[in-house]
Amino acid sequence: MTNAKKRVVIVGAGFAGLSAAKAFKGVDVQVTLIDRRNYHLFQPLLYQVATAALSPAQIAQPIRGILRKYPNCSVNLADVTGVDKARRVVITSDGDVPYDYLVIATGSTHTYFGKDSWSRFAPGLKSIEDATSIRQRILSAFERAEASDNPAEQKSFMTFIVVGGGPTGVEMAGAISELARHTLKDDFRKIDPLQTRVILAEAGNRVLNGFPEKLSHRAEKDLRKLGVEIVTGHPVADCNEDGVTMNDTVIPAKTVIWAAGVKASPAAEWLQAEKDRAGRVIVNTDMSVPGHNDIFVLGDTASLQLPDGRFVPGLAQPAMQQGRYVAKLIAHRISDTSAPGPFIYKHYGMMATIGRGAAIVDFGKFTMDGFITWVMWGVIHLLPLIGFRNRFVVMCDWLWSYFTHERGVRLITVAQSQKD
Amino acid sequence: MTNAKKRVVIVGAGFAGLSAAKAFKGVDVQVTLIDRRNYHLFQPLLYQVATAALSPAQIAQPIRGILRKYPNCSVNLADVTGVDKARRVVITSDGDVPYDYLVIATGSTHTYFGKDSWSRFAPGLKSIEDATSIRQRILSAFERAEASDNPAEQKSFMTFIVVGGGPTGVEMAGAISELARHTLKDDFRKIDPLQTRVILAEAGNRVLNGFPEKLSHRAEKDLRKLGVEIVTGHPVADCNEDGVTMNDTVIPAKTVIWAAGVKASPAAEWLQAEKDRAGRVIVNTDMSVPGHNDIFVLGDTASLQLPDGRFVPGLAQPAMQQGRYVAKLIAHRISDTSAPGPFIYKHYGMMATIGRGAAIVDFGKFTMDGFITWVMWGVIHLLPLIGFRNRFVVMCDWLWSYFTHERGVRLITVAQSQKD
Repeated sequence: MTNAKKRVVIVGAGFAGLSAAKAFKGVDVQVTLIDRRNYHLFQPLLYQVATAALSPAQIAQPIRGILRKYPNCSVNLADVTGVDKARRVVITSDGDVPYDYLVIATGSTHTYFGKDSWSRFAPGLKSIEDATSIRQRILSAFERAEASDNPAEQKSFMTFIVVGGGPTGVEMAGAISELARHTLKDDFRKIDPLQTRVILAEAGNRVLNGFPEKLSHRAEKDLRKLGVEIVTGHPVADCNEDGVTMNDTVIPAKTVIWAAGVKASPAAEWLQAEKDRAGRVIVNTDMSVPGHNDIFVLGDTASLQLPDGRFVPGLAQPAMQQGRYVAKLIAHRISDTSAPGPFIYKHYGMMATIGRGAAIVDFGKFTMDGFITWVMWGVIHLLPLIGFRNRFVVMCDWLWSYFTHERGVRLITVAQSQKD
Repeated sequence: MTNAKKRVVIVGAGFAGLSAAKAFKGVDVQVTLIDRRNYHLFQPLLYQVATAALSPAQIAQPIRGILRKYPNCSVNLADVTGVDKARRVVITSDGDVPYDYLVIATGSTHTYFGKDSWSRFAPGLKSIEDATSIRQRILSAFERAEASDNPAEQKSFMTFIVVGGGPTGVEMAGAISELARHTLKDDFRKIDPLQTRVILAEAGNRVLNGFPEKLSHRAEKDLRKLGVEIVTGHPVADCNEDGVTMNDTVIPAKTVIWAAGVKASPAAEWLQAEKDRAGRVIVNTDMSVPGHNDIFVLGDTASLQLPDGRFVPGLAQPAMQQGRYVAKLIAHRISDTSAPGPFIYKHYGMMATIGRGAAIVDFGKFTMDGFITWVMWGVIHLLPLIGFRNRFVVMCDWLWSYFTHERGVRLITVAQSQKD
């Protein structure tokens, strides 16, 4: 055993990075967690910020507060721009950070499949800023419809297209429809929010295609009950300020939300490592990067094929499992004790919520849907919210909005640059 | 009596405008409330958003939601740019809005007494965006101190200067000191937040000079107990990115907050009406503009001298009283019944809070201070928060932070334009 404390640098305070940092508690290492945000974001509920149900602070917790009682862990707020493997340093906006072991868990971002110009008209949902900006667009669309005297314009302001039928797209479409049909229904004098069109556009032939077909159909039925129109089988051909073109038809819509493509953050470029089509680093069975047993990539940034041929899904559960696994592995390496075997993924199931009272879950062996599943979804998404306060306040907000259909966070705030 | 419904246009959904709109309930008029925001802001608690104790949505309520059950009132989200008294229309970003009676209650903004270049370095606190931007500056200052290796730089990042010793300045200074000394005290590894300097700079010879001298001294004592340094008797001579110059001394400080000057919104220019030094329209005893008995100006935008020679203060209470008074006056005018006499201001007292457990109140006949006053301040500021949900959630947050010193909203979010 050597004398100087080993330096572990973790990049990214998402589910994977934060779990790793916490799992080093009591281990004789010096951990540095680097993130460009000062908070950990509970991304599964981000769509509720975008649809005015929750405030940002209810799903975001300051990293320093979470790690207050982890004295071997310090937090750097900085932008990582690269890795110098020869010098063993992480290159950041605040200078170089040397490492003995490097853990990268920088997540993913949305992609427009090469059509980057669409991002102006169809924002994606990955950050708090994305969420408040989408919230502003949705609420402003109703305001502008109310202010307009042109029926065609009113109609296009009251048409919302969500592109992408994965869990985020389904949740967004359901929540926008509820916002229009329940929360806002008595708020206007000229327009009737019940006339709002919410269109969920999926290029494949069914929504939630990661789930069994039966559950997809159940979800589609639930969505239709909420007033969502579902268009499957046609990719988006164009997207501009007037609307979306699909199947040679232009659908006029002033508000389009992008939930279609995800690509990994540029860790593969930093490491010059092999990556899959979505940009994820292809890792060994112990999450290390081939040829570099001191560098690990986790969560949405990693591509790990399981022995049964399937890939570890981009969910919070496997990310947290990987974080804890890698911390244990590094601790064993440092103390020269026998290291654990390969990472074993425990799949607990996969859920999606459609709206008030409707959710689906796939446990692999069996599936569930309906009201009880929705309550289960609520409990499972409430428990991991770090800190009693958030859990309690979010629960109050949910119960409140369940019984009243009210959404309390209907604020149109503007970015600094747009202020007068 | 005429047949066509009279049109009342109210500009501004602050305390005065909203009270007026609500007081028209059941009256046979057509009310249009115009605001450039879609929410009513409970400004007395804005400093708590700026210091990470509350979320924006906890002190802001959608105007449409508040007026949902007021069918004679419609809401326009628009920017007012002028008034055409000859044509009797309000000129807005969305076109002209005709009125029979016009009520202007557009509030006030901060002023730098001609030194507008200071606004970049010393932001003021009037809007939600101001508050989240100040929150970002305060939290980022600690981050940058932690990231720095230069002791002088660290010190200037850990020095906060609040300019202006009125209620907002006192509240801000107390809250920043509490944030540093309690909430953040174990959050960093290199810097010690207990070394934070918070300086409250007041050009006059005591803080809270609208209150009796005894209470000012009590507030100064309470502030010092919280760790705030008070500098009185010297106006700010310069303000730039390095700090503030006062009394021929430069105090290096990276974070300066402006709570010194207030000026009325430009209603006097719209109306070409006589104004006082702070830009407020000088109104008749019935709140109407001299020479225009169909135009009324209320709240912070109006200057009304009372029979005893004093002026109606710029507080929520008189603004709401004026709103209700003017609605009643207009209703009487329309129905040709005898109008009420001049506006009579009922002064209930004036409060300020200094921090955890410390507040002062001036009832005119007697004064109070200390813990009980602080509890009273809490109750008085909680009750008017519109909607049960806000009241309950804010109460939970307050109790939670009272017992734990925790502030849950420590998020550094960035404006859209700064995003990468």
